[in-house]
Amino acid sequence: MAEHTVASFDEDLRQISRLINDMGDLAGSMVGAATRALLETDNALAQRVVSDDAIMDARQRELDDRAITLIAKRQPMADDLRNVVGSIRMAGDLERIGDLAKNIAKRVGAVGISAAPRDLTHSIESMAQLVLIQVQAVIQEYTVGDATALAKLRNDDERIDVKYTSVFRELLTYMMEDPRNITACTHLLFCAKNLERIGDHVTNIAENAYYVLTGTQLPANRPKQDETAMSAPAA
Amino acid sequence: MAEHTVASFDEDLRQISRLINDMGDLAGSMVGAATRALLETDNALAQRVVSDDAIMDARQRELDDRAITLIAKRQPMADDLRNVVGSIRMAGDLERIGDLAKNIAKRVGAVGISAAPRDLTHSIESMAQLVLIQVQAVIQEYTVGDATALAKLRNDDERIDVKYTSVFRELLTYMMEDPRNITACTHLLFCAKNLERIGDHVTNIAENAYYVLTGTQLPANRPKQDETAMSAPAA
Repeated sequence: MAEHTVASFDEDLRQISRLINDMGDLAGSMVGAATRALLETDNALAQRVVSDDAIMDARQRELDDRAITLIAKRQPMADDLRNVVGSIRMAGDLERIGDLAKNIAKRVGAVGISAAPRDLTHSIESMAQLVLIQVQAVIQEYTVGDATALAKLRNDDERIDVKYTSVFRELLTYMMEDPRNITACTHLLFCAKNLERIGDHVTNIAENAYYVLTGTQLPANRPKQDETAMSAPAA
Repeated sequence: MAEHTVASFDEDLRQISRLINDMGDLAGSMVGAATRALLETDNALAQRVVSDDAIMDARQRELDDRAITLIAKRQPMADDLRNVVGSIRMAGDLERIGDLAKNIAKRVGAVGISAAPRDLTHSIESMAQLVLIQVQAVIQEYTVGDATALAKLRNDDERIDVKYTSVFRELLTYMMEDPRNITACTHLLFCAKNLERIGDHVTNIAENAYYVLTGTQLPANRPKQDETAMSAPAA
């Protein structure tokens, strides 16, 4: 009887893991699709990202419900409790990544990037690529249980911040050059900001995943930086 | 002995309520201070908002820890479980409101609104006022247990969205009129967007609070709208 209880406890934990994996896959696919939709002005693809977000929200609700029921029913201790609570937090960040991808997708119609200069398209594409790699890597490293890779991944977010600052400056330049660029560039500014924020959520996931795996917090919380928002003279 | 357990269970719940109240007060004070700092270019006040955010984060951690411990130790059922889980979710939204207020505060130095036209300052001020009223009301209505007021409050978010759309258009106009406005207006655009998002978090809190109080979900989820991000011709 005791064994049966342990077995179904493990099964509960496995289901939560599976949900995290599903949500991670969906997050990666949404970020990739939103960026492609933006860069290729693909409205149908943008629409799919918007629909995917409803699936993401449902997955998070399911994970939350399962996790809470598991805690209430089985009173997990130490490692297991850390695992379940960590999963709730990771699911929260994955859901936010879905929201941000949806927000990018919703701007596709307003941007019409085809008219944008090549250099700019290229900068945004390379920023998006960095972000996508991070999103995909964080769930993979968590699944294989590589805490060192997670610590490195958290620090890699800095590269996204650097890219964002440069995209931000580039966009301001285009706006100043020609007022007709202002509307589209404003929407691109929000898209770039959303990509930067997706990076921040990856950082959160890496930190939580590291804690779940090791039981210790990552040292010296790297401050999440948006240098363009600093009180220094405007970027 | 059983009574002692019940008494300390109630005490645990009360502590969680107190934390939600504290976080709600702090959120209101941060939003109010961030807006004042922005409108009066008050760097010292902006700095205080940044420091307050660390307190907010600590409060959320504390609430999370208490709530999880309570679930694991006492296995609350039905109403009580709903209450605890609802508190975890509300705390998550309050923490995000703190983040957004901090982000507004960090832009104070870059904006220097004193040079902005009166009309614009006035629009942002009146949007911020609407948001502040919502933030303060949501926790108050939850505390007094007024579900009807919470339902109304959720719908009132629409007024913030309407204001945001008009501020967005106004900012674009100023940018087009004079390229020298672009940098400051860009930061103001992010500030306005942050205020709009604070409104969305208030909506989430109202929905969760309603659920905790009544055990039923609010009907017909009002879609959170940012009309400027619609695929229609750009706003």
